[in-house]
Amino acid sequence: MTDVVATTRRREATRQKLLDAAAQVFAEVGLDAASVEAICERAGFTRGAFYSNFETKDELFLELAGNVARERVRAVRTRVLELESAGALSELPTLALDIVQQVLDVSADDRLGVLLRNEIRIHALRTPRLATAYLAQEDEMRRSVSQIIDDIARAKSLRFRMTSDEAARLMLTVWDGASVRAVMAGLDHEQMCAHTNAELARVAQLIIDVPEH
Amino acid sequence: MTDVVATTRRREATRQKLLDAAAQVFAEVGLDAASVEAICERAGFTRGAFYSNFETKDELFLELAGNVARERVRAVRTRVLELESAGALSELPTLALDIVQQVLDVSADDRLGVLLRNEIRIHALRTPRLATAYLAQEDEMRRSVSQIIDDIARAKSLRFRMTSDEAARLMLTVWDGASVRAVMAGLDHEQMCAHTNAELARVAQLIIDVPEH
Repeated sequence: MTDVVATTRRREATRQKLLDAAAQVFAEVGLDAASVEAICERAGFTRGAFYSNFETKDELFLELAGNVARERVRAVRTRVLELESAGALSELPTLALDIVQQVLDVSADDRLGVLLRNEIRIHALRTPRLATAYLAQEDEMRRSVSQIIDDIARAKSLRFRMTSDEAARLMLTVWDGASVRAVMAGLDHEQMCAHTNAELARVAQLIIDVPEH
Repeated sequence: MTDVVATTRRREATRQKLLDAAAQVFAEVGLDAASVEAICERAGFTRGAFYSNFETKDELFLELAGNVARERVRAVRTRVLELESAGALSELPTLALDIVQQVLDVSADDRLGVLLRNEIRIHALRTPRLATAYLAQEDEMRRSVSQIIDDIARAKSLRFRMTSDEAARLMLTVWDGASVRAVMAGLDHEQMCAHTNAELARVAQLIIDVPEH
């Protein structure tokens, strides 16, 4: 390994540690109350390490917001590919709760994840530049979920009472709301997943057009 | 009017002006970035006036959060009473969009209202004391909406595909999500109402069990 490669890797590792530490601090106390000092202390670095990686705290926050959104999209996409390549879609159970559990369980957020997403949301509400990125990432997420819904509909010969795009938006909105309520109610991670899945399943059942016999 | 009454009224007016000014500042820059100075300047008072009314900025925020929630519940309740006392429920149109427009239009939030509610939400996610109050107020709001749904169902002989309580929660969650997206997309107040009502109507249509002919 050349020195340049080693330096680049070390630099990337430092950057990632700063991003991870910042995610925790932002989630806990919010962007405005989070000091660069607190982020550095959590990451175990000096302020020098921070400023050689990011110009400002806001720049780091913007990069973090992008990463969080991309990670969510990636998790859902991976799940679709897994189900498709395993030919597992046609073997999915018929009950809405079971479908929801098998497809979405993988990306259940923990408490800090919910906090961070809502911290990003409030700042996107105030900052046009963040809002544009937030909406674009939400669109991408919705398209991924919409594709899962289409795939499941085909595999299970299901019909829906709204377009897969509308259904995806509704599922994501309910997912959001349920996660927020779960965190406020102080549920632990397992309870949170059960609670969110139950709410999502109820909506899935509403969307599925039950065939007449 | 005695001096005591005059003093009490003046005191209440000062308190209300401080709350109104704080609502704007909190919505614009968030609780943490909002200084007591900025709130006083917006209200046209000195710091002395602030501290003779509130011990801390957090105390004011807590009172404001309670007021915002109570005001939303009150607006919806007033709407139910109006419709009931006018015997107007049985004259409601049958189309979901029209029902939603007539019942919920009254409480459409503007941009600052959405910002303030989301600012309260992120702090409730972090602060157990606020979370308990937030969830209690959400429950109250849900019961009010659930009552409207029951009343409309009776008046119009509609059947629903979920309980009125579940339907109320779903409508409120969708309302929230649609408002946030509308603000991020930079819609003006009229566009926001149209957008939110259209999303709510789509969900209402989903919830209504279309009778077989």
